[in-house]
Amino acid sequence: MSNQAKKDEKPKGILERLNAGEIIVGDGGFVFALEKRGYVKAGPWTPEATVENPEAVRQLHREFLRAGADVMQTFTFYASDDKLQNRGNMDPKKMTGYNVNNEACLIAREVANEGGALVAGGVSQTPTYLSGKGKEFTQKEFQKQMHVFMENKVDFLIAEYFEHVEEAEWATEVCKATGLPVATTLCIGPDGDLHGVSTGECAVRLVKAGADIVGINCHFDPDITLAAVRKMKTALDAAGLKAHLMTQPLAYHTPDVNKQGFIDLPEFPFALEPRVCTRWEIQAYAREAYNLGVRFIGGCCGFEPYHIRAVCEELAPERGFLPPGSEKHAPWGDGLRLHTKPWVRARARQTYWKNLKPSSGRPFSASLSKPDCWGVTAGDQELIQKTSNTTDDELKTLFSTKG
Amino acid sequence: MSNQAKKDEKPKGILERLNAGEIIVGDGGFVFALEKRGYVKAGPWTPEATVENPEAVRQLHREFLRAGADVMQTFTFYASDDKLQNRGNMDPKKMTGYNVNNEACLIAREVANEGGALVAGGVSQTPTYLSGKGKEFTQKEFQKQMHVFMENKVDFLIAEYFEHVEEAEWATEVCKATGLPVATTLCIGPDGDLHGVSTGECAVRLVKAGADIVGINCHFDPDITLAAVRKMKTALDAAGLKAHLMTQPLAYHTPDVNKQGFIDLPEFPFALEPRVCTRWEIQAYAREAYNLGVRFIGGCCGFEPYHIRAVCEELAPERGFLPPGSEKHAPWGDGLRLHTKPWVRARARQTYWKNLKPSSGRPFSASLSKPDCWGVTAGDQELIQKTSNTTDDELKTLFSTKG
Amino acid sequence: MSNQAKKDEKPKGILERLNAGEIIVGDGGFVFALEKRGYVKAGPWTPEATVENPEAVRQLHREFLRAGADVMQTFTFYASDDKLQNRGNMDPKKMTGYNVNNEACLIAREVANEGGALVAGGVSQTPTYLSGKGKEFTQKEFQKQMHVFMENKVDFLIAEYFEHVEEAEWATEVCKATGLPVATTLCIGPDGDLHGVSTGECAVRLVKAGADIVGINCHFDPDITLAAVRKMKTALDAAGLKAHLMTQPLAYHTPDVNKQGFIDLPEFPFALEPRVCTRWEIQAYAREAYNLGVRFIGGCCGFEPYHIRAVCEELAPERGFLPPGSEKHAPWGDGLRLHTKPWVRARARQTYWKNLKPSSGRPFSASLSKPDCWGVTAGDQELIQKTSNTTDDELKTLFSTKG
Amino acid sequence: MSNQAKKDEKPKGILERLNAGEIIVGDGGFVFALEKRGYVKAGPWTPEATVENPEAVRQLHREFLRAGADVMQTFTFYASDDKLQNRGNMDPKKMTGYNVNNEACLIAREVANEGGALVAGGVSQTPTYLSGKGKEFTQKEFQKQMHVFMENKVDFLIAEYFEHVEEAEWATEVCKATGLPVATTLCIGPDGDLHGVSTGECAVRLVKAGADIVGINCHFDPDITLAAVRKMKTALDAAGLKAHLMTQPLAYHTPDVNKQGFIDLPEFPFALEPRVCTRWEIQAYAREAYNLGVRFIGGCCGFEPYHIRAVCEELAPERGFLPPGSEKHAPWGDGLRLHTKPWVRARARQTYWKNLKPSSGRPFSASLSKPDCWGVTAGDQELIQKTSNTTDDELKTLFSTKG
Repeated sequence: MSNQAKKDEKPKGILERLNAGEIIVGDGGFVFALEKRGYVKAGPWTPEATVENPEAVRQLHREFLRAGADVMQTFTFYASDDKLQNRGNMDPKKMTGYNVNNEACLIAREVANEGGALVAGGVSQTPTYLSGKGKEFTQKEFQKQMHVFMENKVDFLIAEYFEHVEEAEWATEVCKATGLPVATTLCIGPDGDLHGVSTGECAVRLVKAGADIVGINCHFDPDITLAAVRKMKTALDAAGLKAHLMTQPLAYHTPDVNKQGFIDLPEFPFALEPRVCTRWEIQAYAREAYNLGVRFIGGCCGFEPYHIRAVCEELAPERGFLPPGSEKHAPWGDGLRLHTKPWVRARARQTYWKNLKPSSGRPFSASLSKPDCWGVTAGDQELIQKTSNTTDDELKTLFSTKG
Repeated sequence: MSNQAKKDEKPKGILERLNAGEIIVGDGGFVFALEKRGYVKAGPWTPEATVENPEAVRQLHREFLRAGADVMQTFTFYASDDKLQNRGNMDPKKMTGYNVNNEACLIAREVANEGGALVAGGVSQTPTYLSGKGKEFTQKEFQKQMHVFMENKVDFLIAEYFEHVEEAEWATEVCKATGLPVATTLCIGPDGDLHGVSTGECAVRLVKAGADIVGINCHFDPDITLAAVRKMKTALDAAGLKAHLMTQPLAYHTPDVNKQGFIDLPEFPFALEPRVCTRWEIQAYAREAYNLGVRFIGGCCGFEPYHIRAVCEELAPERGFLPPGSEKHAPWGDGLRLHTKPWVRARARQTYWKNLKPSSGRPFSASLSKPDCWGVTAGDQELIQKTSNTTDDELKTLFSTKG
Repeated sequence: MSNQAKKDEKPKGILERLNAGEIIVGDGGFVFALEKRGYVKAGPWTPEATVENPEAVRQLHREFLRAGADVMQTFTFYASDDKLQNRGNMDPKKMTGYNVNNEACLIAREVANEGGALVAGGVSQTPTYLSGKGKEFTQKEFQKQMHVFMENKVDFLIAEYFEHVEEAEWATEVCKATGLPVATTLCIGPDGDLHGVSTGECAVRLVKAGADIVGINCHFDPDITLAAVRKMKTALDAAGLKAHLMTQPLAYHTPDVNKQGFIDLPEFPFALEPRVCTRWEIQAYAREAYNLGVRFIGGCCGFEPYHIRAVCEELAPERGFLPPGSEKHAPWGDGLRLHTKPWVRARARQTYWKNLKPSSGRPFSASLSKPDCWGVTAGDQELIQKTSNTTDDELKTLFSTKG
Repeated sequence: MSNQAKKDEKPKGILERLNAGEIIVGDGGFVFALEKRGYVKAGPWTPEATVENPEAVRQLHREFLRAGADVMQTFTFYASDDKLQNRGNMDPKKMTGYNVNNEACLIAREVANEGGALVAGGVSQTPTYLSGKGKEFTQKEFQKQMHVFMENKVDFLIAEYFEHVEEAEWATEVCKATGLPVATTLCIGPDGDLHGVSTGECAVRLVKAGADIVGINCHFDPDITLAAVRKMKTALDAAGLKAHLMTQPLAYHTPDVNKQGFIDLPEFPFALEPRVCTRWEIQAYAREAYNLGVRFIGGCCGFEPYHIRAVCEELAPERGFLPPGSEKHAPWGDGLRLHTKPWVRARARQTYWKNLKPSSGRPFSASLSKPDCWGVTAGDQELIQKTSNTTDDELKTLFSTKG
């Protein structure tokens, strides 16, 4: 089906498509991409750009659409009221939770309509939960976002980036109450959530809480993410439960992380460059995800439009079409056939790129890092969410602790 | 001076500003950034996106402006008529050299006016020269572009990406004839141009041909680029010539290249990810360039908006202001002060990021590569520009040669 | 106690010493060290040097004694009759199993007497077992060696380098029948033996078969070896069994091996140099082994005399004395105090060497390798022991298989 | 010619053989090998082992002879009286310069006679020179050693390990006065000696001072050493001088050193393991040295017997025979043909080992180091030779300087 045809047709729902065996391609990461473009601040990572710079958000949506994404997820990561207040909201009248979420919906819908994509309203983990305020207060935060999503008639909901399955269950319940299809993903690896619940058990609990689609997003690279989803699949099968599987991993190699993922790596968040996956590595991920039975395949932090295009190109045989963006991308380097130098022309082939282990150009760097992790565990005073900025004196104490 | 003030004021000319001792920050790389966003095809690398997807080109200009660039260079790389014909022009009526150059000027001017930036018309090396057609034909290609630039009243001209100083001299002459200020850069390293002219001698010849600003762009990383410009400076001083210095290096680490730069690296162009510079490495580049006396400091392939922002942040003490984009970026990771985990808060300081050697996350990769280079030199049949695509049989022969 | 005192005194038995809480330091690897010195052939790895070049074997024993080893293990690795015949025995009259074992005993005893060390007769895995000839024939091979060991009055026995616990049990039984103390080690990691018996279960079976000391030797680096011994300890505790623990790991870093250890690494056996442990890494091993409760601490392939000295220096506080060789080695680089250059003098301290991550000087090498392992498993024709040399045609087939 | 034949024949002189076009293979490094075996102390690096442990010195000589060395160099490195006094001589009556040099001669001759090798008396740089005591005092130190060498009838002389060509000239004059052939090597790279004399000029001066053979030893890896000797050759040719060329490099990879060589590397001297060359890398060195015209090919620190064997095996086609040690070493891994596992058998071939880039097994290490070098230059108080040990307070000051 051509893109034009897709555009004209009323899109089928997400579950209708997944139940029919279709592969759904998600979009990539917004906060990291927009941080590099200048519209998101690392640290708070909040999405006030939907209000401040809508054209930048719209352009990134368009690039993912062009790369082949079937889903436009509203840029509402960390857009709960409690989070927006927490992180130095500059202009409280304009940057209300309502406004940020509403603008995100308008932009997502506008671009989705340009290419027959679905709009997914998104919620993520909250400071309210992490501060131990309990189920009622936590669910209230999600409900405020649901109100905006329903007003804007999103097609389905994604609850994502939860480190604790308990909060994800609470979010799933709120989402489910809208009557829309619900996808829920945790940012955990094969070793379970931060309360020690096994990855398989997490999946079972989410499906029981109402999730139609479950999986993993963020915090780990494609390999580790797929290992985690494999555990989810096994547990769901063992429990006799049915759900579609979803993966939206990092596009950063993280073989050296511990249970808490890339945040603990010394390179997070400002020196992750050497870990970025190539398009060929993403093609390998898409193939492996497909073989494992994952049918909602996207990306999270580090996934740029060309990575999503790579997912679509790898799965073009199964899907029957290439994304619009492939008009500017020949498969497996084939565009190099026209290069002047014969040794570059000789790179116009699949085996070359598939087998290449790219050098880092960094001979003074190691290949792996020891993750930070000071042995501080949940409940420690150090881990309680701060509303005021860390002072210079507090920082000085931290540095000397670090040794 | 605030950005608003800059916007309202009629900008002074490039030479007026450089002569007054001002630091001019250039923009970053368009072809690699737009390839990743889906609008440029690797291989041809031509800028028909100015006609096909003007909003994508405009957005990238805006991001560089927001990052602090003082110059909007028209997206006219490889936009000479001979190159556009050569590389599979899909729609010859719309994608004429005139149209591509004209749209590029309109977009650059529109965005420049939003922030008081200068517009530079850009020309680059031509197939006409490489095919040995001589001075007259080569200069005709440049003249056609000049016509469009003058119509659009660009502020100055950049002749860039020349591997042979001879062609750069010819381009400089054509540019100079317009009466506008001229900046000329070669894509060579400290070992001279591809005809064996020393880097110092190249600079001398360019200034004699009329360049007001000379330097290096593309093909090499910041370190090697600065080593090359150091040679230019020494030679100009020795010859008693005056010119401003300019650097627009790659944002890829290339310690392992040979004389022809990153094109010969096995990772070019689809697996360069691990070589991307961090923002801190770019700050070090900006400082070193400044210390060397370079006053037009920008970037080429691999330079994303956040890299240009890093140049501006490093030189904020000298320039007296931060770029608009710094409203979303605290210096030296200071935005991490609010992070939940104490070991991440402990990264909110200059010494941490300045000294970090980022790991690659790729233990099966080496740190350096042996550049390809089959000992084929200028004049070899293999190096003559092809208009038709390489056939499968030709490719097969190449692969077996490669062994 | 001085070395002279140790020499004069009749040594206590191995079990008497271990039961008294003493730390016993083993020797290092003979086949790899003597291969580098020119007396052992890689491939066969047999110890005919005891007959051909006794002075070279004697010298290596002396170096380990000087380095602090409490045990002189007879150089009888792969010295069973079936192995010696198998591997191209040049001079069958001189190089009988009897002669090789007998000379090994004489040399070991001579050197042991120079420093109050114990002599251990050693047996290792046999082609008879691997060819499936069963318990009776396999034990006959060990019995022939026992005969020589008893004639020579060795102090105890070491059965080592078994990949299958079953063969190790058979060897242990034969050793036990002599009435001497028996130490048995497997060359396996934490994932169990090659028949799939868990590492913990292996330890239990060996103790039940009569081993007084159990542990791991060869095939894995110190880290992996200690992880394996930790599993042995846990299983023995759970089974209520008592045995002393022993580790003799490689002095090669092997984080990238699979279940079969360093033999499958592409670098085996002729390019392992970059993996050699430093003396400081061996000190860390000795400390960790001690903390785990291991009291028989030595090394295998790659362990040179200075590595054994490092074990003794690390454990000098516990043992109360330094080895004789430490007269030529100041702790933690302290000998550099007298160096001319101040920056080398500044390396005369523990924190410097303890924290140094030594660079490889090999920027074109990766840090990890993918182990070979063609999916060929036990029972495959390819794995049956060959007596005739591989022909050129067979090799050619192998190479093309390898791709 | 068989080894037995070589043994029986009176050996021709070094110059007679070189003039006849023969390749002379030197021996390897004594101080580093004997430090690992427990007989030399790192820091002082003096050769009192000739008196204390003659059997250990003799065994290492034998191993180099067996590996194919044509020259037994007396183990008299740093054996001048001034150096022996300087470095904590424990037993001044036995460890006089006379005794150490005399024992070294006796051992070298004994082993040389076992295989028809030549004995070379060796001198090296002196504290007297470094402390600025001038020509007369410096030459007196050398003369005392010459006296012992002449008494013992060595076959020729090697003056080696000079960082300043001036001292090497003085040593060469003293050697020349004996009437024996003289080989002089500097421990410098392509960038000249520590006084700034170019490498080419150094060679010219040494030949003029009387050296029959000139070259480079120690401080740099084979690649850099050959680059330096190439400069010597060019300068000698340009000056119309004739001399034989000699190389005895490190067996450590040192691509990252500065002008002063491996001593400045952070890994010197106790963590150089990952840099050790494989036998195949040494074969490549031998071939390249031969192609460059070097005819005295040996090794220095890090060269173990198997490295010397590799030199002889690589040059066996030119020399017409293999060394005795090759009875235990099949060319290019051919001994693996008999291995059980087919993927190890598949390594029995030249292309496998020639192309292998061995992994380090150290993913937390970088591939290159930044050499230390505190900008302290000749004449600085810090560089004056100390006779007393550095105190704890002095060390503390150094550490804090180092930062």
